[in-house]
Amino acid sequence: MFIIVKRNDIERIEPSNWWVGFKNSELQLLVRHPMISMAIPEINYLGVTIKSVHKGDSDNYLFIDLEIDKTTRAGAFNIVFKLDNGDVIEQNYELKSRKKPAEDFVGFDSSDVIYLITPDRFSKGNPSNEINEDLLEKTIDRSNPYARHGGDIKGIINHLDYIESMGFTAIWSCPVLTNNMPSGSYHGYAMTDFYEIDPRFGTLEDYLELAHKTKEKGMKLIMDQVANHCGLEHWWMKDLPFHDWVNYQDHYEENKDSWDKKAIITSNHRRTINQDIYASRKDREQMNDGWFMSGMPDLNQRNPFMANYLIQNSIWWIETANLGGIRQDTYPYSDKEFMSRWAGAIMEQYPNFNIVGEEWSYNPLIIGYWQKGAINRDGYKSNLKSPMDFAMQRQIVNALNEQENWDTGLVKMYEGLANDFHYATPKDIMVFPDNHDMSRIFTQLNEDLLSNKMAVGYILTLPRIPQIYYGTEVLMNDSANPGDHGLIRSDFPGGWEGDAVNAFTGKGLTDAQIDMQGFIKQILLYRKKSKAIHKGKTIHFAPFNSTYLLFRIFENETVAVIINKNEEPITINLEHFEEICLYGKTLKNIVNNDVFIWGKDMLLNSKGITILSTKF
Amino acid sequence: MFIIVKRNDIERIEPSNWWVGFKNSELQLLVRHPMISMAIPEINYLGVTIKSVHKGDSDNYLFIDLEIDKTTRAGAFNIVFKLDNGDVIEQNYELKSRKKPAEDFVGFDSSDVIYLITPDRFSKGNPSNEINEDLLEKTIDRSNPYARHGGDIKGIINHLDYIESMGFTAIWSCPVLTNNMPSGSYHGYAMTDFYEIDPRFGTLEDYLELAHKTKEKGMKLIMDQVANHCGLEHWWMKDLPFHDWVNYQDHYEENKDSWDKKAIITSNHRRTINQDIYASRKDREQMNDGWFMSGMPDLNQRNPFMANYLIQNSIWWIETANLGGIRQDTYPYSDKEFMSRWAGAIMEQYPNFNIVGEEWSYNPLIIGYWQKGAINRDGYKSNLKSPMDFAMQRQIVNALNEQENWDTGLVKMYEGLANDFHYATPKDIMVFPDNHDMSRIFTQLNEDLLSNKMAVGYILTLPRIPQIYYGTEVLMNDSANPGDHGLIRSDFPGGWEGDAVNAFTGKGLTDAQIDMQGFIKQILLYRKKSKAIHKGKTIHFAPFNSTYLLFRIFENETVAVIINKNEEPITINLEHFEEICLYGKTLKNIVNNDVFIWGKDMLLNSKGITILSTKF
Repeated sequence: MFIIVKRNDIERIEPSNWWVGFKNSELQLLVRHPMISMAIPEINYLGVTIKSVHKGDSDNYLFIDLEIDKTTRAGAFNIVFKLDNGDVIEQNYELKSRKKPAEDFVGFDSSDVIYLITPDRFSKGNPSNEINEDLLEKTIDRSNPYARHGGDIKGIINHLDYIESMGFTAIWSCPVLTNNMPSGSYHGYAMTDFYEIDPRFGTLEDYLELAHKTKEKGMKLIMDQVANHCGLEHWWMKDLPFHDWVNYQDHYEENKDSWDKKAIITSNHRRTINQDIYASRKDREQMNDGWFMSGMPDLNQRNPFMANYLIQNSIWWIETANLGGIRQDTYPYSDKEFMSRWAGAIMEQYPNFNIVGEEWSYNPLIIGYWQKGAINRDGYKSNLKSPMDFAMQRQIVNALNEQENWDTGLVKMYEGLANDFHYATPKDIMVFPDNHDMSRIFTQLNEDLLSNKMAVGYILTLPRIPQIYYGTEVLMNDSANPGDHGLIRSDFPGGWEGDAVNAFTGKGLTDAQIDMQGFIKQILLYRKKSKAIHKGKTIHFAPFNSTYLLFRIFENETVAVIINKNEEPITINLEHFEEICLYGKTLKNIVNNDVFIWGKDMLLNSKGITILSTKF
Repeated sequence: MFIIVKRNDIERIEPSNWWVGFKNSELQLLVRHPMISMAIPEINYLGVTIKSVHKGDSDNYLFIDLEIDKTTRAGAFNIVFKLDNGDVIEQNYELKSRKKPAEDFVGFDSSDVIYLITPDRFSKGNPSNEINEDLLEKTIDRSNPYARHGGDIKGIINHLDYIESMGFTAIWSCPVLTNNMPSGSYHGYAMTDFYEIDPRFGTLEDYLELAHKTKEKGMKLIMDQVANHCGLEHWWMKDLPFHDWVNYQDHYEENKDSWDKKAIITSNHRRTINQDIYASRKDREQMNDGWFMSGMPDLNQRNPFMANYLIQNSIWWIETANLGGIRQDTYPYSDKEFMSRWAGAIMEQYPNFNIVGEEWSYNPLIIGYWQKGAINRDGYKSNLKSPMDFAMQRQIVNALNEQENWDTGLVKMYEGLANDFHYATPKDIMVFPDNHDMSRIFTQLNEDLLSNKMAVGYILTLPRIPQIYYGTEVLMNDSANPGDHGLIRSDFPGGWEGDAVNAFTGKGLTDAQIDMQGFIKQILLYRKKSKAIHKGKTIHFAPFNSTYLLFRIFENETVAVIINKNEEPITINLEHFEEICLYGKTLKNIVNNDVFIWGKDMLLNSKGITILSTKF
């Protein structure tokens, strides 16, 4: 009898490598190979033990639980699979050494300002990768808002200097993993491989170069991840490891060959169900288990192998790319106990890391519920440090669009911020004028430049982690068709060779665009060093006479944010703000460097925001 | 030297009597009499000790702290005041025995439905008391919405049968204490004597008769009290006991003789300041200490004598009138630590009592903050069992007025109720279609009878304490001038002799009015015995196809509330509600007694609310 020994022939092992020296000594490998479930794996490496082996419901999967001893050394070894027919596969597997201590993975926080980028739309850096014949969506068409435009990782790398010079300290790029979908793949949220950079965006090396150069500039790279769903063309959808790998899997499998989207139960998107003590079982199932869209299968995180897969995937990317944060998509759609476990597993491993979770809610009750440290009546313990503040975003827009009145206008910002009493740690919440899923702030504010500055200036001085969507600095908008996703994610001017307007160089920008760009830059450069904004005490005053003042104070630094909606000149009595103890002090306008001595009153000449500081 | 002994000559002692057998053995008497501060009081009664005596800042006040021993017997005794000039006043004072155990003062709860009455506008029972020459406002004019109309306590007593027959189980009357104000005194919220029934409403005996007859019918009487402010014509305003008896007292005293209202600092009414961790000291002071209006001095509950005065006043009324509850006005305007102490003192004395506090907020965060059992980050412990649900009220109105859409229409009711996860005890919160301070619900709903029934029907089946404003049952409205307070508080038809329309008898009512009156009555009569509504489990389903279903379940009683906004007939698939386990069961429409067997689907013929029950 001949024994055939094959080397490195296993179709897929995930994670493709791991590390020694994690707190958690367990590792679960997903092995996919024809009829692998019949195999018996063996490892002969000091400190690595196979604790157990699980077969999938499909014969082509094996899950191997490894125990990696604290003393295990980094190195490569073979996993030997003895197949049923007597053949043997020797698969090489590497345990790397960790490049830095876990404590040194420092996540974004309120000292940062995050630049959010849709990579297909920011800048094209590599002309050779735009079409990939192996992938389903092959066209590239900048004239079609829903087609791919060819932006890539290299494009971001090329403009890191710009991002840094603007004063941003962190970059959140929308997902860059492979989305091998027949259409709409540009946005990145229908992942078909959780371990592969989409070739149209670049290579793993490109991503690591982005990570490395971002880090070199003292900035943080935040990866956009999705634990709730994958793309329908994900490789595993043709041969699912378990019968409960995705939710409503039976509906899918019955219709797989003649794919009938109607057979799929999609989520009811009633996200309040996660908290609602009166929610029906029916609605709850549909909310959490329904597919996000018919092309986005819902992952079943109650399957323990799926749960491990997702946690390990996140840790793999943090460790591989030296990440400065994760942004987790569609947070409330996943099993919430799993999300707690997922975030907890990451934060336990990287105590100084940070994660921001997307819950699109205007309700502070719900935003607060998801934050680590929340005291929830149902006992839910979240491990998510940074929820998103859609509530504040909306209050700001309403405040600026509405006429001033007893209960309209600036009072909306004031009362919105007053809700902070409910939050465990307000300054860890992410706030933003807009993002990739909503109308651009300039459009939301009816293209009013002064309102736009008020919104952005306020956001940048709040006790929050601000996020700015690329192009906000040059008034990018979707006013031609408000809310149109393709338009919201328009190309950044200058990101493509030959662009008539170039926001990187300033070429062709209007005065208003240059003004806004300079405004943001000046605030960001001040903010970078401002302990008052990063972690200062906050005091604000109830709006009156269409004005609203907010102060941020840390030791001898006081930042005064003065928002004024009067079109005509108005004088405000500064004695009202006596408790801030600014009388007689010299302050500087952080945007235009004007000097102001705080006296009995202040003349505000016209509508706008004025940010003064005692420290300059 | 002659010693002159006068009997019962003291101008004012408050409380005018007290009781033996309270848990709290302390009593603090306010004594007002010319130059009384020079007097030394003595009491010779077994078990009653003078612990200490305090002078006011005014010479005309003395505060006496009594200790009433547990064993003290009920009875009368003299307080002997030895005056500075050698004269003596012997003032009789009575300690009564309590008529029933403290535990038997049972407050309103979710088994009740409260009928809110503005007494000047409900019914005139006593033709002889309408004008009182000793009081400032002397006119009576039913054609003027802001004048007194002459309704009184006797008018309520006369119609207790009606109120009972409608199915209400509790009555909250707007204040009936003396408001000796030059104008606007009809509403009752500017009290000028905390111990006296306004003669134009009747006498203490009338009020006690109302209390007694209400009780006899098994109903509860809820007294409307105001701890935040008094009326400017309050007797003590001419001679304030302490220099800090009211807030901003110096502004008042400087201008007392030539009363300049501009000198008064009124509240900024920014109620979020009570919770806001960023609120300025300036705003906080103005909010809590500013006068509610220039004619309503703000009581300083940080003055311990004022604090005692208010607590004792409340207890005096509970004990005297055998109350079934207190409604506390302008709850967040008072010192919040005092309000906690006030409510705590009452609830400690009467463990089964209940208090509802008015906080007009649409924000569930703030509503929740005030409820007993709230877990507040600032450590605030409220002793208020029943806050008011302005948030839910607004969600219901929006839900019914808006077009149905993904995020508009019925989803507002659904998501409004979903906020209950935040509350300590949702069923102790008071909800209402409207009240005396806001547009009538029929006006808010654009005089749409079906919407009106949906709003009221939903409110009456929620896990809440419902409150209905008098006249809602006959579609009273302020549509002629929406929001006009005088109009909102219109006269109840039939309340005055000779009224052309009489809602008590039905004479002259339109078909729509009769329909609404019958609708409410049928629901209330069912609700009275419905444990499912009083304390059942709640399950609701996310709205779809412009329908929304809510279920209340207790043992074998299931109440199904079906709200349908479709004008055209629609069939809903009942399999969606399978988990309620109603298949094959017979249910009865609690309004029209139609019988329905729960099957696979249900035809809804037109817009409206259907309330079915398995128990009949």
